[in-house]
Amino acid sequence: MTSTASAPTGAPPQVVVPRGLKGVVVTDTEVGDVRGTEGFYHYRQYSAVDLAMSRSFEDVWHLFLYGELPGARDRAEFAARVGKLRRLPDVVREALPAIARGSLASGPLAGLRTALSLAGAAAGFQPVYDLGPEQRLEDALACCAMTPTVLAALYRLGAGEEPIEPDEQLGHCADYLRMFTGRTPEPAHAAAIEKYMICAIDHGFNASTFTSRVIASTGADVAACLVGAVGALSGPLHGGAPSRALDTLDAIGTPDRIEPWIRERVVAGDRIMGFGHPVYRTQDPRSKMLREIAQEFGGPLVDFAVEVERQVERLLAELKPGRELHTNVEFFAGVVMELCGVPRAMFTPTFAAARVLGWSANVLEQATDSKIIRPIARYVGPPPPQPVPAA
Amino acid sequence: MTSTASAPTGAPPQVVVPRGLKGVVVTDTEVGDVRGTEGFYHYRQYSAVDLAMSRSFEDVWHLFLYGELPGARDRAEFAARVGKLRRLPDVVREALPAIARGSLASGPLAGLRTALSLAGAAAGFQPVYDLGPEQRLEDALACCAMTPTVLAALYRLGAGEEPIEPDEQLGHCADYLRMFTGRTPEPAHAAAIEKYMICAIDHGFNASTFTSRVIASTGADVAACLVGAVGALSGPLHGGAPSRALDTLDAIGTPDRIEPWIRERVVAGDRIMGFGHPVYRTQDPRSKMLREIAQEFGGPLVDFAVEVERQVERLLAELKPGRELHTNVEFFAGVVMELCGVPRAMFTPTFAAARVLGWSANVLEQATDSKIIRPIARYVGPPPPQPVPAA
Repeated sequence: MTSTASAPTGAPPQVVVPRGLKGVVVTDTEVGDVRGTEGFYHYRQYSAVDLAMSRSFEDVWHLFLYGELPGARDRAEFAARVGKLRRLPDVVREALPAIARGSLASGPLAGLRTALSLAGAAAGFQPVYDLGPEQRLEDALACCAMTPTVLAALYRLGAGEEPIEPDEQLGHCADYLRMFTGRTPEPAHAAAIEKYMICAIDHGFNASTFTSRVIASTGADVAACLVGAVGALSGPLHGGAPSRALDTLDAIGTPDRIEPWIRERVVAGDRIMGFGHPVYRTQDPRSKMLREIAQEFGGPLVDFAVEVERQVERLLAELKPGRELHTNVEFFAGVVMELCGVPRAMFTPTFAAARVLGWSANVLEQATDSKIIRPIARYVGPPPPQPVPAA
Repeated sequence: MTSTASAPTGAPPQVVVPRGLKGVVVTDTEVGDVRGTEGFYHYRQYSAVDLAMSRSFEDVWHLFLYGELPGARDRAEFAARVGKLRRLPDVVREALPAIARGSLASGPLAGLRTALSLAGAAAGFQPVYDLGPEQRLEDALACCAMTPTVLAALYRLGAGEEPIEPDEQLGHCADYLRMFTGRTPEPAHAAAIEKYMICAIDHGFNASTFTSRVIASTGADVAACLVGAVGALSGPLHGGAPSRALDTLDAIGTPDRIEPWIRERVVAGDRIMGFGHPVYRTQDPRSKMLREIAQEFGGPLVDFAVEVERQVERLLAELKPGRELHTNVEFFAGVVMELCGVPRAMFTPTFAAARVLGWSANVLEQATDSKIIRPIARYVGPPPPQPVPAA
């Protein structure tokens, strides 16, 4: 699997590793980890699901960026501080209509990418290596706090409506819901979305997190790192597209159609959206938590989703034996968001509004290292130098 | 140097490699390579320096994105095509004043990052994996072509001046010079900057190039990849800051001060800007080419720079024996740009205007793969799960 290839004479040694750097350890981290075979993942030393079920989004945010849960006094102070940061800087607010017009075709993540880039530049963000830990943290807090405001404003502008200003009296997730729906959310909806968002903050060393760390390793500013991560998240192979699982439910339509629909797709070699994960070899703990949240709401969509899950897992076990294919985070995340009135266009943005905290914690951790991440590629083209032909 | 660590029971194998992925082969490439011990680098099968000395920027651009130098007829057609693409889309042109105001504090690369993000979104760029090769190429061409226009406009807006529209009758590099200086460049200046820009298009698997490929490996759109690369380039460890070498010349001042100034810095453990490269163990071929170009212009700055190079190499050989420290690309690139009337604030942007072609070729190559680049991190924090304390 690994070997040290013989490099050209005098050249530095080359280390050949699995394709896509699969299983290759890039760095040590204290941010968290995923144990795929156990169906367990954690944020620092705590189970992510336990945190989601018992703590506020702001508490977990504090855990990510300061390395510990807030104490009784810090708690309110931190929530008030990030509540204030939800308000957009003028230069970003003024540019949002143009950014919204400009991102209708490529989607809200492209708009977020532009807005965070502009916000970081306008705030004069400097390279992380030139800053002390407190200023780096300030920059990260500002980006995390404004992300929901940006996403909600882009959504409303895209729908021809005026953006809604943040209300710092509300919790982070409840205010996010309010800013794009235009109404104060029911407490049960706000609580469910908060749990979902907590469980989406981080999840091992995924491609967008890795991107944020590669950029941070050059010493670039916090916005540069987050903007790259947003770009990586927008890639279809990154996987975060919770609306596709709901589209699957729509396409199946009724319980009697589950079996023929699934058999047809599997025979055709199609992937069933909402099932399977690159790391989990057992039930995805996020899926389990979100199913329980959905079942507390109840109703026909939930019953249908649970029935689809049951039949699909049975069918996949029959058709693809030994593969251990279960529902992934997308499946019940989509159901929960639908129940809470989140439009499908906001599913991936909501994921990004949570994940920006995980990226930030990773950027802050990478900034304490001073080693650039710079692998190599192996040249396999025609041998140089060939003479350059005349023009 | 490499080992397969024992992973937790049942977990996938972990491959432990040198820090910062140094020497780790991520992918095969046909774009080009650097041979550090030979002092040689190439673009596809051609010596980069030979290309710079004999071909137009547009010809080499064609080589990067199509994989071959253009034939006699394609040549003019391609130049005309990319000349037209230099003009900015309306949505970008209209947003530039706000982007320029917003990037005064963080610099022109932050402005480029925002503008490319907006441009890609406004043009409706779609994930590379969802596009055919021709559309991906179109997207890359558009980004490469507009980059100099964006950078020149941001520079002029930052200086309180009106942007200048592109003139598609001019070559790419000459028009870039014209758009920020406000006057048609002397042919010798345009030719020197063109050679510099050709030699800066690509240089192995540097951190910004790697960033662009990680993002591309998720299937994200071309703008997402390039925006991440611009962010990585803005990091101080990436190294591209040609103005610092000129600052060194300024700080030394006169030939008699070279030796004491350098000795003092080396004893203090400071790095001498403009000297040393992570890959080259001999003369940097770009430095050699740019020195010759500078010497053709001649004059006191060039004489002084050559004398500084001579004395510093002698002193470094004495003070740091065995290190093989030579001038890097920054040193004479700064001198050449100064001679050609490029203000120091535009040194790094000019590098970016060239490098965007290298990133693009790498993104297009990565898009033909379908394997996400997703390494892992090793969790080293306190063991989970700890019970979550009550709030």
